[in-house]
Amino acid sequence: MAGTVTVPGASVPSTPLLKDELDIVIPTIRNLDFLEMWRPFFQPYHLIIVQDGDPTKTIKVPEGFDYELYNRNDINRILGPKASCISFKDSACRCFGYMVSKKKYIYTIDDDCFVAKDPTGKDINALEQHIKNIMSPSTPFFFNTLYDPYREGADFVRGYPFSLREGTHTAVSHGLWLNIPDYDAPTQLVKPKERNERYVDAVMTIPKGTLFPMCGMNLCFDRDLIGPAMYFGLMGDGQPIGRYDDMWAGWCVKVICDHLSLGVKTGLPYIWHSKASNPFVNLRKEYKGIFWQEDIIPFFQNVTIPKDCDTVQKCYIYLSGQVKEKLGTIDPYFVKLADAMVTWIEAWDELNPATPATENGKAK
Amino acid sequence: MAGTVTVPGASVPSTPLLKDELDIVIPTIRNLDFLEMWRPFFQPYHLIIVQDGDPTKTIKVPEGFDYELYNRNDINRILGPKASCISFKDSACRCFGYMVSKKKYIYTIDDDCFVAKDPTGKDINALEQHIKNIMSPSTPFFFNTLYDPYREGADFVRGYPFSLREGTHTAVSHGLWLNIPDYDAPTQLVKPKERNERYVDAVMTIPKGTLFPMCGMNLCFDRDLIGPAMYFGLMGDGQPIGRYDDMWAGWCVKVICDHLSLGVKTGLPYIWHSKASNPFVNLRKEYKGIFWQEDIIPFFQNVTIPKDCDTVQKCYIYLSGQVKEKLGTIDPYFVKLADAMVTWIEAWDELNPATPATENGKAK
Repeated sequence: MAGTVTVPGASVPSTPLLKDELDIVIPTIRNLDFLEMWRPFFQPYHLIIVQDGDPTKTIKVPEGFDYELYNRNDINRILGPKASCISFKDSACRCFGYMVSKKKYIYTIDDDCFVAKDPTGKDINALEQHIKNIMSPSTPFFFNTLYDPYREGADFVRGYPFSLREGTHTAVSHGLWLNIPDYDAPTQLVKPKERNERYVDAVMTIPKGTLFPMCGMNLCFDRDLIGPAMYFGLMGDGQPIGRYDDMWAGWCVKVICDHLSLGVKTGLPYIWHSKASNPFVNLRKEYKGIFWQEDIIPFFQNVTIPKDCDTVQKCYIYLSGQVKEKLGTIDPYFVKLADAMVTWIEAWDELNPATPATENGKAK
Repeated sequence: MAGTVTVPGASVPSTPLLKDELDIVIPTIRNLDFLEMWRPFFQPYHLIIVQDGDPTKTIKVPEGFDYELYNRNDINRILGPKASCISFKDSACRCFGYMVSKKKYIYTIDDDCFVAKDPTGKDINALEQHIKNIMSPSTPFFFNTLYDPYREGADFVRGYPFSLREGTHTAVSHGLWLNIPDYDAPTQLVKPKERNERYVDAVMTIPKGTLFPMCGMNLCFDRDLIGPAMYFGLMGDGQPIGRYDDMWAGWCVKVICDHLSLGVKTGLPYIWHSKASNPFVNLRKEYKGIFWQEDIIPFFQNVTIPKDCDTVQKCYIYLSGQVKEKLGTIDPYFVKLADAMVTWIEAWDELNPATPATENGKAK
């Protein structure tokens, strides 16, 4: 078990925030050397590693980290036939980690993401900022021009209704990336040398009714509030599409957060995204999504979840029905996806029974 | 007439952008010494000064600026009985300047706002940034997590629908303030020492369907696209409310921009707001607004402008009817305000006849 770690010179809180309430989920196909750089920030936390691809391969995890690791064989064993809802050969498999966690909060990060520096040259403790974001309220009902009103040195500006200043619970904290921006294949192809060098010192709530492209590279969320909607869909092996896993989750999550009056924040913290994926490979994975999203976005912009859907699960099952009905006409893929959404919820509920015994119900 | 000005060391574009297409509107009750600091940036432009308060007082304008000045007597002479829609003893009077301008763009700034410095210590040419904002498209239909996608070094991120990447016309550019933030009286009272020291290096579009608190201190807009909705209401002398002039305009403007698919941006540029107004005086002006906005905001959030309202004027007249019907029950003030909204449009159309002769129709 990992305890509090003291590394000389690093800006580590003396008691790591939410140490026993947060799991770090990492999907990977390689040795996790990238964790060395994160050691001062991550070592106090429990890691859930979801090994993608060949399950016979051994993934090396640096010494001193407290982790559990699941490969495809583990997923199949734990979920049985319901394992069909977990993608293979795609980082979408990470959502299995959300399901087996028993913590309140999840932070997920890609293994090509490193510690970024703020404009003063100081290492950014991304996890600490996410925790700040997620533990302070969101303001989705009215825009605050000075960004996060709960941040030190800021507040609500003149004209902001007082009745809305308590805000609402934050379900998601979406962090950004310095160096390699999260571009689609066409943009990568057109701008191969573009790097994100702009550090925007802001956190903001994405307003109610507005969809956004949620990237899974550097993402934190409250499992209790929104976990069952964080399904990363069917991507990769055997599927006609890839690189839309986090987008799909983001659209579902945002529509459900809006319905349940939960908040989604974006902005700080930045991580350093080290390498661009191959744009040609990406184009092959994405090209159907590029067409389909032209219909998917209006679908999510117009879907209205009925009032009696008062849990994330109910909302998600309702959405799956709408996906089948409204998007199934685009391609049979969406019928399969809609079914997988239902399977995902069934598997989620099986591993996370809604009883006081939840704490002891962890499937291993 | 002012020509291009060269000041050694200042970052002045060699040819000022939109020199003949933009007026700077300044409401004031004092000598305009603050213009000295703005000289390198403002001198090429034409100023419209709206003198508030005692019309017999002489306002001194520093040498070398090209300006026209209107006091209350001028407003009464030009508008006749319709002058009743222009506020007195309140900076809301500035909207008279929007009405008499014949230019495509307006920049308005308060006379206690000075040139701010960016984090490198360089003077910020606020007007230049506003012009960049307003001449590049807005993206109100979907959120871009890397902020303004049209800015150098940025773009649309993965998952942003391609059909929305052209964006839409930008009608408004809302700039921010370093030093004294734009707080209401209660917040001023609670946090008298708070200063805004955070330079957030971002411009963003406020999403469709989201209202925001529009501050008139540092504001640029396209008169052709949204001018007739930039009415700053009835405030100050003889009215039960003050300091809601820009808020009122912002709510009307945003609802109409959403209806007409026009964009509103906020963020850069910053100005240096030099002094906080008296919070006790402000509280007296604001306190009714603090109550009323709790009803006004839901009103604007729920109002739906009919499809056949295809001009700003038609939208605004429709809004005035709704204000009378839905807000008139709160206080008779809103009936008076609704009537003034109609008068404003009548006066606007009188001074800005919709004919090819518009260019020559300037009232003096």
